[in-house]
Amino acid sequence: MDKKGLIVVLSGFSGAGKGTIMKHLLQAYPGEFHLSISATTRAPRQGEEDGREYFFRTREEFDTMIENHELLEYATFNGNSYGTPRSYVEQLVNEGKDVILEIEIQGALQVKKIYPEALLLFVMPPTADDLKDRLVGRGTETEDVIAQRLAISAKESQFMTGYDYLVVNDDLEQSVLNVHSIISSEHFKTARNVETINTIQNELKKFERR
Amino acid sequence: MDKKGLIVVLSGFSGAGKGTIMKHLLQAYPGEFHLSISATTRAPRQGEEDGREYFFRTREEFDTMIENHELLEYATFNGNSYGTPRSYVEQLVNEGKDVILEIEIQGALQVKKIYPEALLLFVMPPTADDLKDRLVGRGTETEDVIAQRLAISAKESQFMTGYDYLVVNDDLEQSVLNVHSIISSEHFKTARNVETINTIQNELKKFERR
Repeated sequence: MDKKGLIVVLSGFSGAGKGTIMKHLLQAYPGEFHLSISATTRAPRQGEEDGREYFFRTREEFDTMIENHELLEYATFNGNSYGTPRSYVEQLVNEGKDVILEIEIQGALQVKKIYPEALLLFVMPPTADDLKDRLVGRGTETEDVIAQRLAISAKESQFMTGYDYLVVNDDLEQSVLNVHSIISSEHFKTARNVETINTIQNELKKFERR
Repeated sequence: MDKKGLIVVLSGFSGAGKGTIMKHLLQAYPGEFHLSISATTRAPRQGEEDGREYFFRTREEFDTMIENHELLEYATFNGNSYGTPRSYVEQLVNEGKDVILEIEIQGALQVKKIYPEALLLFVMPPTADDLKDRLVGRGTETEDVIAQRLAISAKESQFMTGYDYLVVNDDLEQSVLNVHSIISSEHFKTARNVETINTIQNELKKFERR
């Protein structure tokens, strides 16, 4: 097995259930994956700790990170900026750990540009109506906000083919299994096991006949 | 999910345990995979049925199949020829079934040329000495035959990088799980789900805002 970990990006439509899949994935396979921690300019909420939920940074510090290319991707929502610190991700990957980034679609495509070997997974509900039903079912958003999110999903769907894998989230437990399968399979690619192949090729040389 | 099945090729060194993996895979996931049935010029053994273990063919019939390009790959061992009938494989794949071909390395590479989308899995033991131990442990072959097989493995190892996935068969149950993961993950590739993506893109259009 190669020693470097994988960079896995999980994104998808708002309401597709990617957060729930992530939560169950981490519970079902403890220690197997590491969540990337984002940097943000947003103020910590009660109970949140720097370096656990987020790396909390001032606007100035965040802007410096951007200038120094310390962020793999970043975006701004409602005046707060969020970004993925490159050093944290690279440190984990170099330690052989698989890192999962749960980020928006634009950010996902930025990451793929920097790391073409990153695995991009897109989570979608079985149908567009399911997506609407889930957003309505949450009961936390106004009709207008829901309409806005669905319109964003319509736009975002144009980028789905830029992803490597599609997870149709029909059944939660099955989706968790599927995401786990996709990530583990990646480790078995011959391209990721060049060292193992070289080793057995060399070992077998003693059995060669002239 | 796309409707076409996958062509999966399982090969590896003699003694690596691919036959055992196959047997356990078919038992663990009944109905999920279909084994390709080879055509052969070898005479049926007691209890063997035409179309179950093999398609039994005369030398003349076999040669006609070769001439008509009806075989995906073929090889001759000890005067008997063995080959994979193209029509049988294509029929299963068109019915949406995943077909597994357990064939030799040269045949595997022939199949990949015809179907670049075929999944090639290579099974190897953890070390070259494990391979020797397993062949010796079987107790069915002479020392000379074992030396010959190991020499063939040394040659075959040069083709490992032509495969898509590497399965290091250390623990049988784990290898069966790994092979299952690799095959199922392939179904989630976006490139294999173009229809599903087109459908949701079209469905989402009704939520677009002008």
